[in-house]
Amino acid sequence: MFEYHKPLKVVEADYPKITRPDQVIVRIKGAGVCHTDLHIQEGMWHEKTNVRLPYTPGHENAGTIEEVGEGVEGFKKNDPVILHPAVTDGTCRACRAGEDMHCENLGFPGLDRDGGFAEFVVTSVRSLVRADGLDLTEIAPLADAGLTAIRAVKKAATNSYPGAFIGVVGVGGLGHIAIQLLRHMSNASIIAVDIVESKLKLAEQFGAHYVVDAKKDAVKSILEITKGKGVNAIIDFVGTQATHDTCYKSLRKGGKFVIVGYGGMINARSIDMIASELTVEGSLVGNYLELADLVELARQGKVRVVTNKYPLDRVNEVLESLKGGGLMGRAVLTP
Amino acid sequence: MFEYHKPLKVVEADYPKITRPDQVIVRIKGAGVCHTDLHIQEGMWHEKTNVRLPYTPGHENAGTIEEVGEGVEGFKKNDPVILHPAVTDGTCRACRAGEDMHCENLGFPGLDRDGGFAEFVVTSVRSLVRADGLDLTEIAPLADAGLTAIRAVKKAATNSYPGAFIGVVGVGGLGHIAIQLLRHMSNASIIAVDIVESKLKLAEQFGAHYVVDAKKDAVKSILEITKGKGVNAIIDFVGTQATHDTCYKSLRKGGKFVIVGYGGMINARSIDMIASELTVEGSLVGNYLELADLVELARQGKVRVVTNKYPLDRVNEVLESLKGGGLMGRAVLTP
Amino acid sequence: MFEYHKPLKVVEADYPKITRPDQVIVRIKGAGVCHTDLHIQEGMWHEKTNVRLPYTPGHENAGTIEEVGEGVEGFKKNDPVILHPAVTDGTCRACRAGEDMHCENLGFPGLDRDGGFAEFVVTSVRSLVRADGLDLTEIAPLADAGLTAIRAVKKAATNSYPGAFIGVVGVGGLGHIAIQLLRHMSNASIIAVDIVESKLKLAEQFGAHYVVDAKKDAVKSILEITKGKGVNAIIDFVGTQATHDTCYKSLRKGGKFVIVGYGGMINARSIDMIASELTVEGSLVGNYLELADLVELARQGKVRVVTNKYPLDRVNEVLESLKGGGLMGRAVLTP
Amino acid sequence: MFEYHKPLKVVEADYPKITRPDQVIVRIKGAGVCHTDLHIQEGMWHEKTNVRLPYTPGHENAGTIEEVGEGVEGFKKNDPVILHPAVTDGTCRACRAGEDMHCENLGFPGLDRDGGFAEFVVTSVRSLVRADGLDLTEIAPLADAGLTAIRAVKKAATNSYPGAFIGVVGVGGLGHIAIQLLRHMSNASIIAVDIVESKLKLAEQFGAHYVVDAKKDAVKSILEITKGKGVNAIIDFVGTQATHDTCYKSLRKGGKFVIVGYGGMINARSIDMIASELTVEGSLVGNYLELADLVELARQGKVRVVTNKYPLDRVNEVLESLKGGGLMGRAVLTP
Repeated sequence: MFEYHKPLKVVEADYPKITRPDQVIVRIKGAGVCHTDLHIQEGMWHEKTNVRLPYTPGHENAGTIEEVGEGVEGFKKNDPVILHPAVTDGTCRACRAGEDMHCENLGFPGLDRDGGFAEFVVTSVRSLVRADGLDLTEIAPLADAGLTAIRAVKKAATNSYPGAFIGVVGVGGLGHIAIQLLRHMSNASIIAVDIVESKLKLAEQFGAHYVVDAKKDAVKSILEITKGKGVNAIIDFVGTQATHDTCYKSLRKGGKFVIVGYGGMINARSIDMIASELTVEGSLVGNYLELADLVELARQGKVRVVTNKYPLDRVNEVLESLKGGGLMGRAVLTP
Repeated sequence: MFEYHKPLKVVEADYPKITRPDQVIVRIKGAGVCHTDLHIQEGMWHEKTNVRLPYTPGHENAGTIEEVGEGVEGFKKNDPVILHPAVTDGTCRACRAGEDMHCENLGFPGLDRDGGFAEFVVTSVRSLVRADGLDLTEIAPLADAGLTAIRAVKKAATNSYPGAFIGVVGVGGLGHIAIQLLRHMSNASIIAVDIVESKLKLAEQFGAHYVVDAKKDAVKSILEITKGKGVNAIIDFVGTQATHDTCYKSLRKGGKFVIVGYGGMINARSIDMIASELTVEGSLVGNYLELADLVELARQGKVRVVTNKYPLDRVNEVLESLKGGGLMGRAVLTP
Repeated sequence: MFEYHKPLKVVEADYPKITRPDQVIVRIKGAGVCHTDLHIQEGMWHEKTNVRLPYTPGHENAGTIEEVGEGVEGFKKNDPVILHPAVTDGTCRACRAGEDMHCENLGFPGLDRDGGFAEFVVTSVRSLVRADGLDLTEIAPLADAGLTAIRAVKKAATNSYPGAFIGVVGVGGLGHIAIQLLRHMSNASIIAVDIVESKLKLAEQFGAHYVVDAKKDAVKSILEITKGKGVNAIIDFVGTQATHDTCYKSLRKGGKFVIVGYGGMINARSIDMIASELTVEGSLVGNYLELADLVELARQGKVRVVTNKYPLDRVNEVLESLKGGGLMGRAVLTP
Repeated sequence: MFEYHKPLKVVEADYPKITRPDQVIVRIKGAGVCHTDLHIQEGMWHEKTNVRLPYTPGHENAGTIEEVGEGVEGFKKNDPVILHPAVTDGTCRACRAGEDMHCENLGFPGLDRDGGFAEFVVTSVRSLVRADGLDLTEIAPLADAGLTAIRAVKKAATNSYPGAFIGVVGVGGLGHIAIQLLRHMSNASIIAVDIVESKLKLAEQFGAHYVVDAKKDAVKSILEITKGKGVNAIIDFVGTQATHDTCYKSLRKGGKFVIVGYGGMINARSIDMIASELTVEGSLVGNYLELADLVELARQGKVRVVTNKYPLDRVNEVLESLKGGGLMGRAVLTP
């Protein structure tokens, strides 16, 4: 990316260099394209990352080991891996607690340094999850879309029991994975919400018990399904003002609203939040073990990603489709 | 209370009647006066409770058993008790899970029926906690102020570890109890925030490690104390727009904002909530076991309530002082 | 039962009487027969219950409401119900925490008073779970076999993650339910262990990933399956010295052994328990919400009980088969 | 140590060498002496560690950084540190979950390689906790005695509430720290058990609510204190057959027995373990964050170690005293 608000340019790049003993170079087999890539292009992350242009986006990567630093053990050339998106120090309190995304020295290839829309990417050995026997292009979206979905699902599932209701707003790249995970990580009834009919069909195929067309009054539909009580938990994978409001208004007493998609404001009267004892909680990607668990679920056949593959030079076209909301599942670049 | 927005009238009332086998009549020895009594007077709870005027407020009560229904076991006349403020059915899912405040058939004397600003109050045997050996007037505020404080403290403490920072905004009836509880239920460093100097002094006496004068820039002070990181958790016991905003802006990555005092709006950009993975959570009074635990802590001498006692007919004067923010600790009516 | 170590006698009994306002009389549609009924007959529970002979066993009951006490709300004649096996006071600390089996005033029809091997049984309204739309004879075993299985499964599942290993020793009345539950409440690989080939077949049908013939060296087989590491958790549904030893020796570092079947001794060197940081934990039936959740899972079709139905007067024949280990699934008496 | 069952020899040793980029050499300021050192001498750990003689014991160390490997960041010469006793890989599942003691590539200086009864010890940067402002000789025992105590206390405290009872058996090097921690990490009533009167005095000084002389019938005394119910949790810091039996027999329904001291057998009838739903759980040292938390508690003045300092060449004398049970608090060698 050379400029904000401009299309990406595909250029020839040098083979990268290992500068620390714990680094590895990965040959990219699949790099998923994310809504955050759109937000990056819009400059929305500039203040948070201070990245200098130009740099290479792409934070959802799978591939094979090309080269390892001298301190790396347990991995060798050609090993198939999926990459946890963060690069972490492993020694701060957050890392010791297993919460990689809160690392005090967090790096994020594709956001604050060169990422995976390229032939090679540099990361740390701490970010590698073995992916033996899996199709690397197919599973690349697990690295971010799937990882973000599993963490949000876990947060929602703590508020669940057999027969509880969990809402999933947005059946796109993350939502269609979340529905599958909810089937295996909760015994709740799943209500999928979207404005695109084909996506609601997909939701049903993947196990949603109810679908709600958000072109009509989604809150009303959710309240009807839940006999006026509302959902126990709901995850917003879209992140517009409209979806934020829908989620918040659909909660029952003690309910939890998990924010994943971002863009609008949370506007809540505090008297309502205490009278119904509500929780609103942001969810940020996921940690290393959550990715390892997700890869194992994929291996067990419990999670399948709907992917559309494109060569690297069609990246701008993919970003356009994503903006339009017309993509089914996740687009993956194959450098 | 005969009319919203008017002073209360003290009138002669009939001795109440037991209408169910699990009911008890309690002779009031102490009835705490709460900010919610002000909000009731302002009509703020009218839509939520649909109570019919006139009725008797007072939801923070301790006293002695006067009479028991025929199904009541384990209690007899003159037993000293403190009253959990809710009347619950004991059979719904919430009750079975121990979450009394979410009972599907919740009653709340003082809010939706006659309460404790009176000589006698009717409640259920399920609401009684034994208070043997305790001064009933002194401990009455545990029934609501203390109970609300302990639940909020528990929610904040889950985000804590030795050396973490927890903020307490408002050192009034609830806040001064919360500070004591944090000393015994967490090993966090406590930052007390208020605009009244004498209340900050009280906070220090009860064990706050830092005090912040909110007449100046409270967020800035909190960030200085926490070396720019912010607090791990913060509880808002005040509930103005200003305190809501202070709490939200004082959070560190992964931080939790527990709302107790209400009145304003929570306004949060969703990108910030996900980027820092924040949680905003309402807290609603507390459950039966939380009250039982609190009474035991009082028995152990770990919690002491600062009380000011008034005869019942000075109730309007007390409400005025409360509104003005000048009361230290909690006012208790002694009918 | 008239005498220990003797067959039961089937006699004419009077219609029971309601003696408390919260009691109900249930017309039995199905009463499951349990290993504990054998142990009762052997006198093993005499010291723990002090029951006086003669009395009626049967603690796994479903049926329809026949009559309700005057304090009972929400249930009326002919409502279909399944009975939580315990009768609890609802006011002690354990009840308030939702842990019914630890009630300080626990009653247990079929163990310490007349149970369900009869036309009618008396219980409390607090023990009723609605069973609308379910086959009462088929689901009766959920009341104890299923309930005990779900609690044990929950305890095992806390030690699990996708790809972890959980062992189930004994694929009888409880074990075949546990295997189904593990499929829906964990993403572990399930290892079923039994000495009867047809039961191992059943285990596979219900979703066990591995089966182990315990007539050979079960520990060795488990270690082979788990690549020498052992299981993360294992549940003993049998309770002989041999199964206790198998379970304990099959644990990996940090592993958990959940005891359900009883009969032998736990013999463990303390140096091993600390060096591998092992946990050995008894599991006792289950609480009310666990039964409610289980009934919902049955409603969702996720749990199916294999039952064999017998008229009440064949009870001694059923007890004999159970002793012999030849029963598939659970035997249910249909008075 | 040159031979099992023989006294240690103090010899001149070469300055050690850094062989990996993440290693550090620490100059020992204090090295605590532990019951495990006795057990090592007795050969009890030989089968578990396969260490080759001769080697240097000592796994409870504090000191200053002498030299760092080239990959080490954040530490420099003369920095004061306390050493987590384990050396871990940081990349296995256990390490990612923060459970250092279950690392798949665990090293343990003093047990399986040269430890801290020496002028210098080699460890990994991952094992260092900053100890600025603390007396390194005084706090050395936190590295193992304190760390093991805090983990056991956390396990016991999960079974606690205000007014619950927690037993501490053995008021030696670990027990006297555990009592202090229980005062700050639970609101339980603490029952200290020992056979030495001066140790029971120490227990009272550090906040035990009850003391029990184990030369008389300890189980009987505990049952009297707990009004016949037994303790909610109990920790065995001694590890003889007698203390194991005392702990197990002192449990109430739902109680938990945490094993720290080892040596005997756990012998439990499975019918009792299920009828009272008991838990028996080994506890193994502690993880990195538990040590970091403990150091912070020491900094806050909430934990104080009773130490007796000896020069390195009196190590055999110290081991003898420890065997005799006459040591108060913890002995620390000061090389």
